[in-house]
Amino acid sequence: MHKLAKALGEKIRVKRKAKGLSQDALALSCKVDRSYMGRIERGEVNITVEKLYRIANTLECEPKSLLPETLHLHELASDFPD
Amino acid sequence: MHKLAKALGEKIRVKRKAKGLSQDALALSCKVDRSYMGRIERGEVNITVEKLYRIANTLECEPKSLLPETLHLHELASDFPD
Repeated sequence: MHKLAKALGEKIRVKRKAKGLSQDALALSCKVDRSYMGRIERGEVNITVEKLYRIANTLECEPKSLLPETLHLHELASDFPD
Repeated sequence: MHKLAKALGEKIRVKRKAKGLSQDALALSCKVDRSYMGRIERGEVNITVEKLYRIANTLECEPKSLLPETLHLHELASDFPD
């Protein structure tokens, strides 16, 4: 259901592992609760743009590099129910 | 104080005007409250990535094109108080 959050979380996870950081270390650096960071990576929560910037800052990458490709309209529709 | 939200809101406003859309029309299309869209453009609220995608979808642009350039660390620090 939450394709966007899942795709974003997966990108964060991949980048974090590429940096050799543990989930706990990333959470600590971003001042995010450990369990919440797990939920972010599993795509269970819809993070704010501010949090995206904090995470990108810790991962030393551009925030936009963590954004999934634009989903097709029908996928957006399923992500964004009325 | 909220440089990130302000920069993001300004980018949304510029893109919206370039598309010839009113704030109300954008709000309606994104299923966002009119007054909330005003707050977004003024940088008074910190939107979610999901909302960023909805707005970009209506503005027919890539979500990442609406993201401000990565702020310098000291600017991030002022944006993200402990």
